[in-house]
Amino acid sequence: MLIVMKADATDAQVAHVCDVVTELGFKAHAMPGATRTAIGLTGNQGAVDPTRFENLPGVAEAIRVSKPYKLITLDLRPEKTVVRVGDATIGGDELAIIAGPCAIESRAQAFAVAEAVRRSGARFFRGGAYKPRTSPYAFQGLGEEGLKILAEVRETYGLKIVTEALDEAGVDLVEKYGDMIQIGARNMQNFTLLRRAGRSRMPVLLKRGLSATLDEWLLAAEYIMSEGNYNVVLCERGVRTFAQHTRNTLDLASIPAVRRISHLPVVVDPSHGTGKNYMVIPLACAGVAVGADGLIIEVHDQPEKALSDGAQALTLEQYDQLIAEVRPIHDVVAPQPVG
Amino acid sequence: MLIVMKADATDAQVAHVCDVVTELGFKAHAMPGATRTAIGLTGNQGAVDPTRFENLPGVAEAIRVSKPYKLITLDLRPEKTVVRVGDATIGGDELAIIAGPCAIESRAQAFAVAEAVRRSGARFFRGGAYKPRTSPYAFQGLGEEGLKILAEVRETYGLKIVTEALDEAGVDLVEKYGDMIQIGARNMQNFTLLRRAGRSRMPVLLKRGLSATLDEWLLAAEYIMSEGNYNVVLCERGVRTFAQHTRNTLDLASIPAVRRISHLPVVVDPSHGTGKNYMVIPLACAGVAVGADGLIIEVHDQPEKALSDGAQALTLEQYDQLIAEVRPIHDVVAPQPVG
Amino acid sequence: MLIVMKADATDAQVAHVCDVVTELGFKAHAMPGATRTAIGLTGNQGAVDPTRFENLPGVAEAIRVSKPYKLITLDLRPEKTVVRVGDATIGGDELAIIAGPCAIESRAQAFAVAEAVRRSGARFFRGGAYKPRTSPYAFQGLGEEGLKILAEVRETYGLKIVTEALDEAGVDLVEKYGDMIQIGARNMQNFTLLRRAGRSRMPVLLKRGLSATLDEWLLAAEYIMSEGNYNVVLCERGVRTFAQHTRNTLDLASIPAVRRISHLPVVVDPSHGTGKNYMVIPLACAGVAVGADGLIIEVHDQPEKALSDGAQALTLEQYDQLIAEVRPIHDVVAPQPVG
Amino acid sequence: MLIVMKADATDAQVAHVCDVVTELGFKAHAMPGATRTAIGLTGNQGAVDPTRFENLPGVAEAIRVSKPYKLITLDLRPEKTVVRVGDATIGGDELAIIAGPCAIESRAQAFAVAEAVRRSGARFFRGGAYKPRTSPYAFQGLGEEGLKILAEVRETYGLKIVTEALDEAGVDLVEKYGDMIQIGARNMQNFTLLRRAGRSRMPVLLKRGLSATLDEWLLAAEYIMSEGNYNVVLCERGVRTFAQHTRNTLDLASIPAVRRISHLPVVVDPSHGTGKNYMVIPLACAGVAVGADGLIIEVHDQPEKALSDGAQALTLEQYDQLIAEVRPIHDVVAPQPVG
Repeated sequence: MLIVMKADATDAQVAHVCDVVTELGFKAHAMPGATRTAIGLTGNQGAVDPTRFENLPGVAEAIRVSKPYKLITLDLRPEKTVVRVGDATIGGDELAIIAGPCAIESRAQAFAVAEAVRRSGARFFRGGAYKPRTSPYAFQGLGEEGLKILAEVRETYGLKIVTEALDEAGVDLVEKYGDMIQIGARNMQNFTLLRRAGRSRMPVLLKRGLSATLDEWLLAAEYIMSEGNYNVVLCERGVRTFAQHTRNTLDLASIPAVRRISHLPVVVDPSHGTGKNYMVIPLACAGVAVGADGLIIEVHDQPEKALSDGAQALTLEQYDQLIAEVRPIHDVVAPQPVG
Repeated sequence: MLIVMKADATDAQVAHVCDVVTELGFKAHAMPGATRTAIGLTGNQGAVDPTRFENLPGVAEAIRVSKPYKLITLDLRPEKTVVRVGDATIGGDELAIIAGPCAIESRAQAFAVAEAVRRSGARFFRGGAYKPRTSPYAFQGLGEEGLKILAEVRETYGLKIVTEALDEAGVDLVEKYGDMIQIGARNMQNFTLLRRAGRSRMPVLLKRGLSATLDEWLLAAEYIMSEGNYNVVLCERGVRTFAQHTRNTLDLASIPAVRRISHLPVVVDPSHGTGKNYMVIPLACAGVAVGADGLIIEVHDQPEKALSDGAQALTLEQYDQLIAEVRPIHDVVAPQPVG
Repeated sequence: MLIVMKADATDAQVAHVCDVVTELGFKAHAMPGATRTAIGLTGNQGAVDPTRFENLPGVAEAIRVSKPYKLITLDLRPEKTVVRVGDATIGGDELAIIAGPCAIESRAQAFAVAEAVRRSGARFFRGGAYKPRTSPYAFQGLGEEGLKILAEVRETYGLKIVTEALDEAGVDLVEKYGDMIQIGARNMQNFTLLRRAGRSRMPVLLKRGLSATLDEWLLAAEYIMSEGNYNVVLCERGVRTFAQHTRNTLDLASIPAVRRISHLPVVVDPSHGTGKNYMVIPLACAGVAVGADGLIIEVHDQPEKALSDGAQALTLEQYDQLIAEVRPIHDVVAPQPVG
Repeated sequence: MLIVMKADATDAQVAHVCDVVTELGFKAHAMPGATRTAIGLTGNQGAVDPTRFENLPGVAEAIRVSKPYKLITLDLRPEKTVVRVGDATIGGDELAIIAGPCAIESRAQAFAVAEAVRRSGARFFRGGAYKPRTSPYAFQGLGEEGLKILAEVRETYGLKIVTEALDEAGVDLVEKYGDMIQIGARNMQNFTLLRRAGRSRMPVLLKRGLSATLDEWLLAAEYIMSEGNYNVVLCERGVRTFAQHTRNTLDLASIPAVRRISHLPVVVDPSHGTGKNYMVIPLACAGVAVGADGLIIEVHDQPEKALSDGAQALTLEQYDQLIAEVRPIHDVVAPQPVG
């Protein structure tokens, strides 16, 4: 914490701030400058709330320095985490591909897509049984029926099932039928849900919120880990900005930013990250080139008939093309340094 | 829905799009233009997903026209809703004041603040028992203990209790101890929670999400109403933008924007909307002047010792000053037209 | 400047950073903390570029503390500046009203609007002769012809003329025909233009850029003042965000934020700040309530035939209504404290 | 243009809107729907301003359909433009590398960097002689002296010189000493400057503005082209968002978005696009993978002593590493389809 005094702060005001710091059990370091005094605060274990100081007389600004997270950091664990999902991994040398339809619509649809996903060599199948929809009147997913279809897909194709839980009851069901719990962007700060996922023994795919800062995203992972579940994979899926040529703005700089602070793997979702079919392949290539540990891709056997997000779903042919384009890039990309 | 064809789209492509529209049970209106053809789609009851058309050959763009909400609209109910909370109201002629600390920290703190709130003539007391905190290591609220203190405040001062529910179990508890369920910004698209609140018989205060569009916010209200609870009050509390001089950017234009579409009352939260103590009074004045139905204000008897959000809490003296400043503005503001 | 070292930074790295600070002529204050060391830097006259330190070994972050502006600050001039434009003022007790059409389209249009503006008691007439248009094919203004009409308006009605200069040659012309140089949002960081305006003896109305931070806006004013022209009025006109229900998001919190740092007057533009006719009056009321020194309003005698920005222009009747609504609010608003 | 009527619009109001459309010389197509009527407008040559209709009685919304640009479009020129700068090109098969320091600080610095740039096989040297700085007190560049050094670099190393012009006089000077006029982000809508560049016979590198939409950026190029200069290269350099882990948010989706509409080449600036040294290489790789025609990179022989933007400049060693990493990616990337 650094407390910056106003230019016209009196000595008494500086002394008072130092006293408040000391009373709270911290150490105050006054640094008189040419135009104003700054007061450093040390001795704190975690982050100190700057708001305790901002309204004291003579204070111009209080600047937080310590970061509030611990478990996600490279300080705690200097080497990258490899999340194991059965015999498949995310965060290791291999590029993890998680592919499938936005929503499970029928057994036939799921199997048609799963067939293509399996054939491509991918290890993970995605598909929503419970869909968070902006409108209460939109298709909300098949529910447990969809989860049963996903379980059949696993049985038949040996793919690991990644599917979203919207609430605590949803986590119970994903634990029963799936292999990895997805927490969606809208729920990134649903702390009840994060804690429930943290008490699960199943790995968690944590999507970045629509307007989440890097710290908020990492702290959402910290929530899960603080309950004991260390198998968390982060997912960059675009953020909301003024730009209108995409549904979201895919922030690929978040991948090196995460790498510098955290040991957790991070994957990229170019489907939601753009919302446009024709952009998915180039942004998937970019995601691999920037050093992501994997991709999550929406594929549909008949995108024009999809019950949700049809505009961004790839056809089976486009999906094959994507795999053909990203693999050679992954082969030539130098692994990004951790930390 | 309007489907805009590419400049070089062939007649066959135009015809194909019209066929797809017809197959889906709608009516297609082809409008040849100087440079390109557009195809209007009518006959739909609700909104049609544009994504079904965007990837058809020759299509440049599909533009949604119909809005997906119904129950929140002035089309459905042309006069403004007045939400009753016991013998108090929001949305009527009186300016509704909801005031209290960010979090209930102790009986003494709650009573000290409630005393001042009551004295000011306000009818509503706010205070969090369950706090959604970005960090798992931050103070999370007193829980049910806090709700019991709130119930005592109601008993003693006759104030209506507005308090946040973070999940379905939280709604059960607010129903037991409080008078109005607050749904926070981070949970604006927690659809499980919205549905549970919709099955409650208690009024709901629905905060706008950090990056929620107007439509998303209104659709969140629609979720609650679609379950049968029509007593919804919207709350503008600022959105996330690039600006760093405030914690959030208070978007006061959302008040006339809501008025034009919806019959629901809307209040302004200048405390979270700015995050800065010194801005709360001027922005509260602005909120009243723009035509809001009320204000929700953070007040603390000792802001510098607050366990959360101390930087934005008003002292008791500042709160009295706020009330003294907003009342004459409310008296001179012409009621904004509905619709 | 505060330089935060990494948790695992060595003593040698800390010492090296201190050496670099000392070499640059500043003083280093090392503050060892529980988990990491921070180094305060003092002795700098202006702001120091943090980038010099961020890539030194062992450095986690360098945080700027000093602000780079001087002339705009209350430190330099503790009382508010009152800008005089002939016998009219902005920043004094009176609410300054600057009203007129977006663009001067004809003598008849200008006079019809000016008549109404004069009748309302406003002292300033606005109108563009050179329009910055997004498209090269849109109406670009009448040019010098428009300025001549404006000069006639001044002659006839005694209104002070506020009009935009797009470049250095434009400043020459405004100096010839007008009373106050407007610098538009798109040119807020056109430093050549700012410097030219700074060498003028005419007051300047400086609009906030579409994505300008508070500091960037104030530094643009500093550019003008650093050339010797101290008569600068700031204008909040909305910023670009994800929100789509308005053309821009009017950031009224910028008014108290400016007040806390600067002695310069600040006015609000609810016309560009919303882009919607029906929102102009409520947001004008909010702007006055938040403590702005004035309003700048687009008015047109026939908005539906306007050559630019017709959607946001008020009719003459609506303009009269606006004046009738904002005056009583201004009468009851307590002056916001400076600083 | 599509004009959507309110649900309760009367037949007379629909008829009135159709009359207004017809009076303006266009054709109106009324499409009665289940809940409301929409009116299509055709017969317009360019874009029609929706604002003319939005305030007519009974109108809910007017939606623009036609795009206002022409010269930049694939409709006009279906194959990609290859911009020639002497014997070098941008937009052809080769990856264009534009590298050099942020600002020219001295002959020694320029030559040290140019030596490395030449050795890497790059064809373009960048370096600012006139720097647009947020603060009037920051280093503003060496001016014409810097341009003379750049001319020497060209002489010595055969590199093409890309350098920024801040105003019309600056274009004169770049024409004298350089090979390609750079227009910076802050000047993207400095229309006087765009027009002057459009009258030049030198190619133009047009950076995207900090908050420019795709359409605004393309229209800025249209301004240049409408004056006769068709040699325009677009440059994505990040936009301003809420995210704070980078200086700007690099929006790589803009590359396929440009490709779909325009024949102009587009390059990526990962230096300004991130503002962080450690992110430049991964984002450069991503930029190449997404299909950009080139990269513009800041390199400095002693970044820690740079007079501007030191935090993002690569060392000579890092620059060599970047080249080594991006070339194999360029080799395996499939050319993105145009249109």
